[in-house]
Amino acid sequence: MILASTSTIHGSGYLEYLHPTLEVHLKEATTVTFIPFARPGGISYDRYTETVRNSFAKINIKVIGIHTYKDMKDALLNSEAIFIGGGNTFELLNQLYQQQLLVHLKNMIENGIPYLGTSAGSNICGLNIKNTNDMPITYPPSFDALGIIPFNINAHYLDPLKGSKHMGETRETRIKEFHVFNETPVLGLREGSWISIEGDKISLKGKHTARLFNKNKEAVEVASGAVL
Amino acid sequence: MILASTSTIHGSGYLEYLHPTLEVHLKEATTVTFIPFARPGGISYDRYTETVRNSFAKINIKVIGIHTYKDMKDALLNSEAIFIGGGNTFELLNQLYQQQLLVHLKNMIENGIPYLGTSAGSNICGLNIKNTNDMPITYPPSFDALGIIPFNINAHYLDPLKGSKHMGETRETRIKEFHVFNETPVLGLREGSWISIEGDKISLKGKHTARLFNKNKEAVEVASGAVL
Repeated sequence: MILASTSTIHGSGYLEYLHPTLEVHLKEATTVTFIPFARPGGISYDRYTETVRNSFAKINIKVIGIHTYKDMKDALLNSEAIFIGGGNTFELLNQLYQQQLLVHLKNMIENGIPYLGTSAGSNICGLNIKNTNDMPITYPPSFDALGIIPFNINAHYLDPLKGSKHMGETRETRIKEFHVFNETPVLGLREGSWISIEGDKISLKGKHTARLFNKNKEAVEVASGAVL
Repeated sequence: MILASTSTIHGSGYLEYLHPTLEVHLKEATTVTFIPFARPGGISYDRYTETVRNSFAKINIKVIGIHTYKDMKDALLNSEAIFIGGGNTFELLNQLYQQQLLVHLKNMIENGIPYLGTSAGSNICGLNIKNTNDMPITYPPSFDALGIIPFNINAHYLDPLKGSKHMGETRETRIKEFHVFNETPVLGLREGSWISIEGDKISLKGKHTARLFNKNKEAVEVASGAVL
């Protein structure tokens, strides 16, 4: 699995910074099944799939949107590789519940299918979506998610803005509030970072450190390359 | 009702910028019942109530935390005025459901008890909490809220940061995503703004304009003093 903080880094094309990594990760796949449920900016499934298709074309991989199949479960079970992109985490999880795909997705990932998640698509691999930054525009039947990794991801992690006069909570404050009510560790993944999961080995990749929050402990910076 | 974007503006004490307004709004009350469920930064109900008590002392109003009563419903029904402060909107709404106070709170406000809300305490007066900026650290049984005003509030409204290289969504993008799935108008209230509700009249107060979002329309700026 590749779980990235963001699909796009500033000044670069969609998924472009991940192309070299994806060429290795997806070397045995000719086609990726794309799940467009998160709809960034509310765009349609078709339009979202088109963006993804154009990016994967550059590494010679075909993309099919799961919404174009009559039987989505069947399409999922016959996939060579799966990509879930970013957008709204609440709506993504909501649709995965509505379409009853969550348990099949979990089984397939645990059985080793190559998976790529970015942003919301990474968040849902944690125990629950309680560390998303997204607006709760839809109400999913539960916040419980795939639970493939033993912690939650906070995507697009942001350090406090120095000199800001805004009184809204910093990201670190929000995650500390989470730990008043929850035990799950949280990994703050900065844009340009991703985690790579091979078997039981989880490693931090990309050019930044990541910030790891454990309940009742000081947050620590994890170096790129470290095994989590 | 006074529904404010924030309790505190930069460089000023807790609720301080609202003291002149509150002296008028609460002129017939000697005591305010405070509901501390939102726990900003995860602080205890007692500590939160202490902060509120110190601020109201400056305008000679006594504060009692609702959590100090054995029968919270009874305490609520016998209140002279009610204040719900900010913190985490999900946890605030969750506790209002758990303690079965929501319907009583709605009745009392509709019957004219003076109410003050800041941030999360303002959000819950809309139709639902789907425009909160908070992290979903707890799962309330529903996102439906008090529905006292016919729109939702987005508190701590922020304009896009010019020149930002961060790829996370702007506030405006998030609210537009909301309107893909929902019809409810949203008022983006900047810090230092509040709305005042007397009978059926809803007016914007404070020194800023507010940004009003309606589905399928361009967002518009509403002038301070305007009747909504």
